[in-house]
Amino acid sequence: MGIDMKIGLAKKGERNLITDVKGVTVGHVTIKGENINTGVTAIRPHGGNMFKEKVLGAVHVINGFGKSTGLMQVEELGTIETPIILTNTLSVGTATTGLIRYMMEENPEIGGKDGTVNPLVFECNDGGLSDIRGMHVKEEHISEALANTDADFEEGAVGAGTGMSCFGFKGGIGSASRITKLDGEEYTVGALALTNFGSIDYLRIDGKAVGPELKEALRIKSEADKGSVIIVLATDAPLNERQLKRLCRRAAAGLARVGSYYGNGSGDIAVAFSTAQTLPHNSKTEIFESKRLFENALEKLFPLVVESVEEAVLSSMLHAETTSGKGKTRYSLKEFMR
Amino acid sequence: MGIDMKIGLAKKGERNLITDVKGVTVGHVTIKGENINTGVTAIRPHGGNMFKEKVLGAVHVINGFGKSTGLMQVEELGTIETPIILTNTLSVGTATTGLIRYMMEENPEIGGKDGTVNPLVFECNDGGLSDIRGMHVKEEHISEALANTDADFEEGAVGAGTGMSCFGFKGGIGSASRITKLDGEEYTVGALALTNFGSIDYLRIDGKAVGPELKEALRIKSEADKGSVIIVLATDAPLNERQLKRLCRRAAAGLARVGSYYGNGSGDIAVAFSTAQTLPHNSKTEIFESKRLFENALEKLFPLVVESVEEAVLSSMLHAETTSGKGKTRYSLKEFMR
Amino acid sequence: MGIDMKIGLAKKGERNLITDVKGVTVGHVTIKGENINTGVTAIRPHGGNMFKEKVLGAVHVINGFGKSTGLMQVEELGTIETPIILTNTLSVGTATTGLIRYMMEENPEIGGKDGTVNPLVFECNDGGLSDIRGMHVKEEHISEALANTDADFEEGAVGAGTGMSCFGFKGGIGSASRITKLDGEEYTVGALALTNFGSIDYLRIDGKAVGPELKEALRIKSEADKGSVIIVLATDAPLNERQLKRLCRRAAAGLARVGSYYGNGSGDIAVAFSTAQTLPHNSKTEIFESKRLFENALEKLFPLVVESVEEAVLSSMLHAETTSGKGKTRYSLKEFMR
Amino acid sequence: MGIDMKIGLAKKGERNLITDVKGVTVGHVTIKGENINTGVTAIRPHGGNMFKEKVLGAVHVINGFGKSTGLMQVEELGTIETPIILTNTLSVGTATTGLIRYMMEENPEIGGKDGTVNPLVFECNDGGLSDIRGMHVKEEHISEALANTDADFEEGAVGAGTGMSCFGFKGGIGSASRITKLDGEEYTVGALALTNFGSIDYLRIDGKAVGPELKEALRIKSEADKGSVIIVLATDAPLNERQLKRLCRRAAAGLARVGSYYGNGSGDIAVAFSTAQTLPHNSKTEIFESKRLFENALEKLFPLVVESVEEAVLSSMLHAETTSGKGKTRYSLKEFMR
Repeated sequence: MGIDMKIGLAKKGERNLITDVKGVTVGHVTIKGENINTGVTAIRPHGGNMFKEKVLGAVHVINGFGKSTGLMQVEELGTIETPIILTNTLSVGTATTGLIRYMMEENPEIGGKDGTVNPLVFECNDGGLSDIRGMHVKEEHISEALANTDADFEEGAVGAGTGMSCFGFKGGIGSASRITKLDGEEYTVGALALTNFGSIDYLRIDGKAVGPELKEALRIKSEADKGSVIIVLATDAPLNERQLKRLCRRAAAGLARVGSYYGNGSGDIAVAFSTAQTLPHNSKTEIFESKRLFENALEKLFPLVVESVEEAVLSSMLHAETTSGKGKTRYSLKEFMR
Repeated sequence: MGIDMKIGLAKKGERNLITDVKGVTVGHVTIKGENINTGVTAIRPHGGNMFKEKVLGAVHVINGFGKSTGLMQVEELGTIETPIILTNTLSVGTATTGLIRYMMEENPEIGGKDGTVNPLVFECNDGGLSDIRGMHVKEEHISEALANTDADFEEGAVGAGTGMSCFGFKGGIGSASRITKLDGEEYTVGALALTNFGSIDYLRIDGKAVGPELKEALRIKSEADKGSVIIVLATDAPLNERQLKRLCRRAAAGLARVGSYYGNGSGDIAVAFSTAQTLPHNSKTEIFESKRLFENALEKLFPLVVESVEEAVLSSMLHAETTSGKGKTRYSLKEFMR
Repeated sequence: MGIDMKIGLAKKGERNLITDVKGVTVGHVTIKGENINTGVTAIRPHGGNMFKEKVLGAVHVINGFGKSTGLMQVEELGTIETPIILTNTLSVGTATTGLIRYMMEENPEIGGKDGTVNPLVFECNDGGLSDIRGMHVKEEHISEALANTDADFEEGAVGAGTGMSCFGFKGGIGSASRITKLDGEEYTVGALALTNFGSIDYLRIDGKAVGPELKEALRIKSEADKGSVIIVLATDAPLNERQLKRLCRRAAAGLARVGSYYGNGSGDIAVAFSTAQTLPHNSKTEIFESKRLFENALEKLFPLVVESVEEAVLSSMLHAETTSGKGKTRYSLKEFMR
Repeated sequence: MGIDMKIGLAKKGERNLITDVKGVTVGHVTIKGENINTGVTAIRPHGGNMFKEKVLGAVHVINGFGKSTGLMQVEELGTIETPIILTNTLSVGTATTGLIRYMMEENPEIGGKDGTVNPLVFECNDGGLSDIRGMHVKEEHISEALANTDADFEEGAVGAGTGMSCFGFKGGIGSASRITKLDGEEYTVGALALTNFGSIDYLRIDGKAVGPELKEALRIKSEADKGSVIIVLATDAPLNERQLKRLCRRAAAGLARVGSYYGNGSGDIAVAFSTAQTLPHNSKTEIFESKRLFENALEKLFPLVVESVEEAVLSSMLHAETTSGKGKTRYSLKEFMR
């Protein structure tokens, strides 16, 4: 549902969620137990078969201290051919296998006449609140998260966000969206953030450097910014893969507005896709009619990215409930934001 | 001199300028006339012969809508072998030739037995206030700027900054520095910014989104963020070329804090060097003893980059005098700051 | 005219030159004098105003020990907006200024309401046979080379290739082209090489490692591969900018086939453009109908790049006349090819 | 054992294997059954605990149509902290998890106080000869392959190479090494190739374009170059991470010499490491004494890479036994080499 707070200047989408981009859905599996706070979040760019109908996509590595997988092929081919999976760091392999199995089931040609598939799995380290060594994410959790996807979805300490921490508070999943017009029609940019980064010393809420005060009031200890953040961007505007990469780069500005300096140990990564057109896995023709933006039009979209990322991060914190695990408690920021 | 305003948390250097990094000097040539507001700024990493004693260096392109030159070889070899020159966009060629001539004079071996030299020239477009088509920068201005270099140097509408605009106000040259300790010794990170970017709608001063108010009060028109900004980072800490590139990437966070969204038409580029060690052009041995940081130590340096870049940008605006040219006037921000 | 030798498997274009791609033209200015062997070569992607009608383009740096300029903006925006200029290393600045002046004359809006222009200038170091310190290329040579462009052009020791050396022999300008079918229609890939690289120890002609024999027979001394090579690729097939970058990367295979190991001191760069569509500098609409290839179709084009680059390099050597300068003589390979 | 054939000019190492770089070991698990031809190959840069004693490393993507994982963090940090695992495409997830489990067992701090670990897993698609959908690689195969590592190891249709195809023949694992002197001491460059690429039309053996003849003689059908090849480079020379990346780029020349054009569907990737020094996971000091090469010295190493990669590919084919699976037979090249 995004948050009420006014962040930035642009018009918000109806839900103020990434799913304001028509066709995009999000689903969670939340895994909780004694010292277990982890899970999986799945994002579907569209409701069809992603392998058969790929979307144009791009990635950008803001800081590469991370283990996310599948980026290389997106960079080479400019397409995304699976749903996007978020989970914890040490479960990347398991989630990859789970996603491969899901795609193979849906597409008997994979591994046969149609080559292989490029699974896209992103991660943050929830080892602060969860027994990450226990490998509690199982292959079947991937298809379960995919089965749960909907245009309405929960934010906060859910799915992959269950055990994440952000600026010394509880982090998790947050989302927001913004709207502009191109050639007279409305188009949406939506962001979803998996937040597990930031040092309280530098936290800014709508620009205000509230970190030091909160730190003193709440006696939170300073920590290095080493947790990672994943940003997923969606749009229905017809950007090509290079233009989508330019969108991704603006996610860095959104992160900086809440106080990130892209910490040494933080895997900060953005991935973007456009739902405006799909590319078939096989085509009868070799030449393809396509749409893209005239470059100047990107100027309208860049601030939308910055604002929706800034708000998605804050929204993750303002929705996340206080969570304990491994002898540690991360408080919800909302308890201090009356 | 930097500015008095407190930006960030870290300790400032003595001068609060890039030249707090020992050995670094900066010099300007300011070119003014009817509808002419342009110039050249030169930064020397050290006082010696840069071709004979190279410094480790790196570049990072935040947004590549720009014409700066020399980046490719820095990327490949990790070294900088000339002083760094800043000027206007259409004068990049002339400045390159001027810098080549300066290097050839100093080094008779260039173009002979010692191969060629990689001139490093960065630019922003001052065509808003200056007759940029007139090509008023001449080759000899390069050696003149280099002759003017000193640890003390002016900020504001001087040198390459003479005709620049920033967030609807007068931009120019700004600088700041920050200090931390590594292995018990103090080390400095300094930033110099050539500022010609930003839309007033998004201007933030120390986090406060003052842009919309100032815009209304001053009836400044919104403009696209299409002007460019160059960030030069210096440090005496012993970073290797990969680590210097990581420093460069944090400049993007500093820009975002003042309101940049890395506009479509803005060439936003960072270059960094370390003065901790030099590499000879020719060496008798093939194996080289070198120093670098242990990676975790970068965590101390990243916030210094963000804060010194944020302050360098604000300092450029707070030092720049109101300037007119081509029928337009850019006011100094300081006229509106109390 | 390319060469008679059969290199590879694909069908050759009519002229066996880059200008088999319809609309592409090439022109030279050759500058010779006592110890002066240098010049300029200009390649026009089409006969119109490149600033007003840009082509999609890409660059790829095989080895970045070089001083070519303009690459950053091509990488960011995926377009080329000037003719492509080749010259000697120390004349890059002068050629840049000459090209800027040419573009300003043709486009009064540059530097005014239409921002600036991104000049694309590539270089190799001809300092072995030419007084490169003398800076014999002048700004006006750029417009002169542009005035000389034609679909028919000379190969060998002409234009930018006048003073270049290749595998211990005389290098220069070479070109070749290859043809394939897409959706039933014929399309062409053309390559132009400015060759100044290679160590005779590794020279291969059509795969045969002739280097060591030739070296002994001719008593040519081994030299490091440090001279550079520039590859310009043109096609009328509708590739987008990412796909053009993939073409560029295949130039590396063509160079390896003649014996390159991408020597440490060699600036090995490829640039590619497609003439299939143009983008206006200003557009009334924000969404753009565009064409691109379905990715599998690139499989047909990649071998064409490899073969045309391999042949272009050999063609440069087989057309270049023996040339002397600075007390050194570089012999034509053709004198030793029966 | 490499091959007897003389490829290139440089001196070969004693074993003519990557394990001529002291400390490097290689181990296989070969998995065979009805329509099952797959496996795992593990490469250890040294015999110690890789997480505690990391090596400097680099990766280079020649063509990114592939699913290898772990590259991003190597790019960011310049270190490798696990053994390198090779397997089939759809088993990347399982191999990742297997490698994580191995690393966790060896290092109880992983996932606790010491953050996570970056598993490095590379792949080619052996689905032509093997039931890749059957997911026959299990997590425990990773520790098994690691237990099998030795300086002596088999080449050919073993380990990850069991089901691979190359230029229409049987591919697999191949290796070679070359030696040069730096500052008077001998240093080694070793290559290991997992070969699953190439179209027979373009096959070259020691430069000779034998492909078309062999194709006609053996009635082998042309196929697109879509299989992938992984190159692992090792050296005991003290290169830093940027210099190791430059080594990786030369692998592309070695591939081109046997006939690769880096086919559209081929994931062609190189990874390199130096054994000259190790970096501890934790350090008491922040400044690190390190060694690197003076850049000119790389000129000696580049041809060694090209030659050892060329030979490693040929060696994989000349050691691989004829293999059948899924109704198809891939013949050994050695059956046709007199």
